Amino acid sequence: MKIICKKNDLVTSVNIASKAVPVKTTMPILESFIIDAADGCIKMIANDMEMGIETVVRGEIEKEGTIAINARIFSDIVRKLPESDIVIESDERYQLTINCENLVFTIPGKPSDEFPSLPEYEKKDPVVMSQFTLKEMIIQTVFSACLTDTANRLMAGELFEVKDGFLRLIALDGHRIAIRKVELKGSNPDKKAIIPAKALSEISKILSGEADDEVRIYFTNMHAIFEFDSSLVILRLIDGEYFNVNQMIKNDYSTKIVINKKMLLNSIDRVSPLYKETEKRPIIIDVNGDDFEISITTSIGNMKDNINVITEGKEIKIGFNPKFIMDVLKVIDEEEIFMFLSGPKAPCYIKDTDENYNYLILPVSIG
Amino acid sequence: MKIICKKNDLVTSVNIASKAVPVKTTMPILESFIIDAADGCIKMIANDMEMGIETVVRGEIEKEGTIAINARIFSDIVRKLPESDIVIESDERYQLTINCENLVFTIPGKPSDEFPSLPEYEKKDPVVMSQFTLKEMIIQTVFSACLTDTANRLMAGELFEVKDGFLRLIALDGHRIAIRKVELKGSNPDKKAIIPAKALSEISKILSGEADDEVRIYFTNMHAIFEFDSSLVILRLIDGEYFNVNQMIKNDYSTKIVINKKMLLNSIDRVSPLYKETEKRPIIIDVNGDDFEISITTSIGNMKDNINVITEGKEIKIGFNPKFIMDVLKVIDEEEIFMFLSGPKAPCYIKDTDENYNYLILPVSIG
Repeated sequence: MKIICKKNDLVTSVNIASKAVPVKTTMPILESFIIDAADGCIKMIANDMEMGIETVVRGEIEKEGTIAINARIFSDIVRKLPESDIVIESDERYQLTINCENLVFTIPGKPSDEFPSLPEYEKKDPVVMSQFTLKEMIIQTVFSACLTDTANRLMAGELFEVKDGFLRLIALDGHRIAIRKVELKGSNPDKKAIIPAKALSEISKILSGEADDEVRIYFTNMHAIFEFDSSLVILRLIDGEYFNVNQMIKNDYSTKIVINKKMLLNSIDRVSPLYKETEKRPIIIDVNGDDFEISITTSIGNMKDNINVITEGKEIKIGFNPKFIMDVLKVIDEEEIFMFLSGPKAPCYIKDTDENYNYLILPVSIG
Repeated sequence: MKIICKKNDLVTSVNIASKAVPVKTTMPILESFIIDAADGCIKMIANDMEMGIETVVRGEIEKEGTIAINARIFSDIVRKLPESDIVIESDERYQLTINCENLVFTIPGKPSDEFPSLPEYEKKDPVVMSQFTLKEMIIQTVFSACLTDTANRLMAGELFEVKDGFLRLIALDGHRIAIRKVELKGSNPDKKAIIPAKALSEISKILSGEADDEVRIYFTNMHAIFEFDSSLVILRLIDGEYFNVNQMIKNDYSTKIVINKKMLLNSIDRVSPLYKETEKRPIIIDVNGDDFEISITTSIGNMKDNINVITEGKEIKIGFNPKFIMDVLKVIDEEEIFMFLSGPKAPCYIKDTDENYNYLILPVSIG
């Protein structure tokens, strides 16, 4: 194999493919990128068995061929090269030579046959949307899924649901639910799939975030396939029946509060010097008319703050894990948010008028 | 005690005093700041027994008093406050209240009597220099001292030597020596003191770095005192006789190389993807006329690079720990550097014509 490409193009591909390189694995071959130069197209492939990525590297092929190369070492080398033409060449003993200006790196590669190939799929009935929207929807929901403790398989995923021309992304972890809804263009058959949340989060980092750039999403029984720019990302779906979220969501409330998002965010952020993860003391929100008081008392000390709000309905005093409120406020774009409460033991909802987003947060008992 | 100050002024003082708060200590009181409001002056004091800092907080005293307050918690709270007036008040039970806009924090303090007071000193014969110069001199030498492994007490310090109107700062760790020299203004009696390198490094972070701002350095038998801006920093000196560095430094050489610093730095930096700390394989510099080749071979792979240089003298092939060369190149301002070599087992010197800086690096055997 012999290929020539620009440093920047190679770095772009390396950064994309890296997302599917496992940090830990029992199969050393998965720590590799496949570089595959054939039919006038250079592809870089990575696969951690949950997520597979194939991305086209802009460049020229002087000699076709394919090789597996340690992803971390190759990435480290490439990122530090000068902004110049890079010539990558492998020999029959799978030695890879990387030439750039006066620099010559030689590292050992492996044959690519052992590497698990990406699953085949049929290009049928894609869900088409802008990269901007998908990226935003993922960022605005994924924090509510269980990303670390994956004792519950289903909670480690997000529900991707197409129904009546709307797409909903839903994530939940037993203390909270995040729902993001968007109307799709064109006609879309109904669909339901549970996609690993961690992999979705990785995809959100690769998506351009441009409204003009498209992403096409295909589904098979086992996989979701995201096609965008020069890349495709294949995710293995989580098997099972997702929670019936519609049944958990209520629409009635006894108190509606209109709050400036930034003021609330700043106020809750100021709790952190006093907050102890081991204590899990709640912040207490005490609303009486337009008087909105936030307070916390921990073993370190106590804090009290007042924010200007507009309230409709009954007075209420309710406790929350401050992190759960913060997580929601951080991803909402609006300047003003609406908080809906029904009592100290009932969930709090933060949602917009059209329910394009709807966040449910369970309260904490304040005894 | 009751004081009023602006958020920014308080943060400035907190950031300075924090440098003398120990991360770990067997004396819990040392984890405190002392806030001392008396005689029209608010002082913030910290002391980890090796370094003591006293800094003036700009603000107004409404009621004199003094209190010890947990430094980390106080800093965390203050940094997150709005940009506004802050009222800090303590009561007879040493409860500290921090008021800012609608916010009220209450945290417990302690009486300040247990806190070790800073040593007294006589303001005599200061070494006076610009903050810019001192900051630069510290940064350009301190990396050569032993900052982590302090088995050798003396190597954990820097020699501060005033002689014949010149100040020299010297740091060494058994593999390398860093010397930085500057001519002092005015008349200065000769002086020698070993100052803890870690504390010097902290001072370099507080110094403004402005050429117009002065620092005055006083010495007692036990301490060095740095006075600058509204702060004073007192360091406990290291006892003992420092190494005779003059005896280790040679001036003869058989090869002199003139190199573009940035090119050499970039080239050595590109070694890192192949470098393994456990192997400690050297980079090999092979100079023959104006042909300057850098190479390394490790278990990961190998690299080779060529740089344009101007050479005077004999050809030579010599090995180095790449980190030691990098550390020096990173702190030198000049575009071009001079490298002086005498043989594969003799030290390498990187120094300027006037020896304002002189770095000695021992080579590594390349078998």
